[in-house]
This record gives sequence, C-alpha cells and structure tokens, in this order.
Amino acid sequence: MPYVTIKMLEGRTEEQKRALVERVTEAVVETTGASKEKVVVFIEDMQRNHYAVGGKRLSDQ
Amino acid sequence: MPYVTIKMLEGRTEEQKRALVERVTEAVVETTGASKEKVVVFIEDMQRNHYAVGGKRLSDQ
Amino acid sequence: MPYVTIKMLEGRTEEQKRALVERVTEAVVETTGASKEKVVVFIEDMQRNHYAVGGKRLSDQ
Amino acid sequence: MPYVTIKMLEGRTEEQKRALVERVTEAVVETTGASKEKVVVFIEDMQRNHYAVGGKRLSDQ
Amino acid sequence: MPYVTIKMLEGRTEEQKRALVERVTEAVVETTGASKEKVVVFIEDMQRNHYAVGGKRLSDQ
Amino acid sequence: MPYVTIKMLEGRTEEQKRALVERVTEAVVETTGASKEKVVVFIEDMQRNHYAVGGKRLSDQ
Repeated sequence: MPYVTIKMLEGRTEEQKRALVERVTEAVVETTGASKEKVVVFIEDMQRNHYAVGGKRLSDQ
Repeated sequence: MPYVTIKMLEGRTEEQKRALVERVTEAVVETTGASKEKVVVFIEDMQRNHYAVGGKRLSDQ
Repeated sequence: MPYVTIKMLEGRTEEQKRALVERVTEAVVETTGASKEKVVVFIEDMQRNHYAVGGKRLSDQ
Repeated sequence: MPYVTIKMLEGRTEEQKRALVERVTEAVVETTGASKEKVVVFIEDMQRNHYAVGGKRLSDQ
Repeated sequence: MPYVTIKMLEGRTEEQKRALVERVTEAVVETTGASKEKVVVFIEDMQRNHYAVGGKRLSDQ
Repeated sequence: MPYVTIKMLEGRTEEQKRALVERVTEAVVETTGASKEKVVVFIEDMQRNHYAVGGKRLSDQ
C-alpha cells in the first residue's frame, strides 16, 4: 500500500518502464510517508484500437 | 472526462469496436453535457477462460 | 456482459444518471449485438480533490 | 453481483484457474447470501515486467 | 499477490464482510498456492443508483 | 494519457494529496516522455474495513 496502476499506450521500452516504476515509487514514498517496500505498481498497456478520445480510436486517426 | 471502460468478450470486429466507441461517446455527451473531445473510452477484451458466471468459466461450458 | 464503468465528476443529477445509463446501454446493444438484459453499467463519482490533470487537482485550480 | 476481479501473475494452469473460480464463487455465496448464478469472476493475468513492489519489477529481480 | 477486488451492493454487515474476506482468501490460497500473507482483498460498495442491468438502475426498479 | 490511479488508505491530508499528484505527474513525464498536460491522476481512498491482507481486514487487527 499504496497501489498504483499506470495505464498507457503500448510501445514504451523496458528501460522506460523500469525507470517509471522507480520514480513513481519514490514520489509516492516522499509525499505519503508510505514505506518503500509496501508500494505496489501495476503497468497496463493499451492498444491503439482500444483507446478513444472524442469518439475516435487512435487507430482510426 | 468522463472516462468509460467497456469490458467484453474478445471477438468483436474492428468495425464493431469503432461504432461502439462512437455511439457510446455520443450517449455520454447528450446525457451529461460533457464536451465530446473530453470523453475517453477504453476497451478491454476478456478471454473465455478468464470470465466466469456462477462459478463456471465460459471456456468450461 | 458487456460491463461498462463510467467514471465522472460528482454533481450530475439522478435524472442525468438515469438517462446516461439508458442511452449507453442502447449504444452497446446496437453496436455489439449483446442482449440488453446482459449489459451492466457501473457509475463511479469522482471528487474534485481526487482528480488531477497536468499535475493539478481540480480542487486546486 | 457480486463482481470479483482476481489479478495475479501469469503462469497458473487452466486447472488452477478453474478451481480458483469455483472456490471463490462458493466463498462469496456462503458469506454474502448472493445466489450462485449471479456471482461473476474476472481473472486478470499480470506480466512480470508490469508488476513492481518497492520500486522494482519482478522481471528485474 | 494475488489481488482480489470484490464489488457488491452496499448493505452487507461488518460480520459478513469479515467472513467474506477470510473465506475468499482461503479459496485463493488453496487453489493457487499463493502464501496467505500475500493475498490482498479490496471491497468496493456500490450504491443502488450507480448500478444498472439492462439499462435500468436498481434504484429505478 | 498516461492514466494513473493511486489507491491508498483514507486519512492523508489535502496537502499530501496535492504533493502526491504533482510529484507522480513529474515522474511520469520524465520517464515516459508524455506531455505534462496529458497526464491524468485519480486518487481512490480505501476504508480500513474494506482492505485486507492475509485474510484479515485492517479494521479487525
């Protein structure tokens, strides 16, 4: 605890995901006082045909 | 905003998903007064072995 | 099935929520071929201090 | 209703998932009084590079 | 891990929720081999005006 | 995009939540290359009787 879910378009590299998870965890620890080993992060990749803004999917633009 | 997540069994066509996203966005705009370009839709596909009703997965029926 | 979750700022009236749920359900039925009685909709209200865009919560703007 | 979502690391067998869904459904029925045919279970598999504890992904350990 | 989310109509007693959490945790441990102290359960209460089946909210029936 | 959901025990102050949202947004921008105004953060408060580890709710410990 806390539990952080990050939903983003697929395509980020493993290096980006590793850094993302590290930096977000630090941000949570420093601002909430949670202990680092309790912070959990989930990444969820979105496909371009499964994500729409304004009624139009990214894959249709 | 609003953010709409639609979870359904895999197997719909791209044409169905495109229409789904358009029509749901219109429904949200007309009933909530949100501006169209702010409506976000996520689609999540479910596999038949990851979905159960009454204790039985679809893939076991 | 499908399962639709609509997350939006608190403050909509009951009349708006009732219409939202009806219209979204129709949109899902017409585009996916799901039978109406199987469509499930969840509404989730967001508070203005629990929602941020660009690093700033709505309650701080 | 109720709707149960179980998020876990990928790699469980179909036999484990089938038993999981059966047993969790029974546990829900016996403790909440819900009727069995109304209990819905979703399984979500997590990848090891999309799950982190303490700022470190499982795939990096 | 695993992480279990149980979404249900508000109104269950504390005793029911306590038993639900215990029994679901046991079901997960016995079928997946997860160690008990790693199983996390979240309960989410739904209001009757925020839940609809077939386009009609429970509060409108 | 990305969309970040942070689920944590209720009780954090408004000041902590404001800082949390700012810092997490920065962490996402610096590691993924997303533009700041596109990063969305949702906070979800958990109650102690709705959160269990090892089959025991926090409110029962």
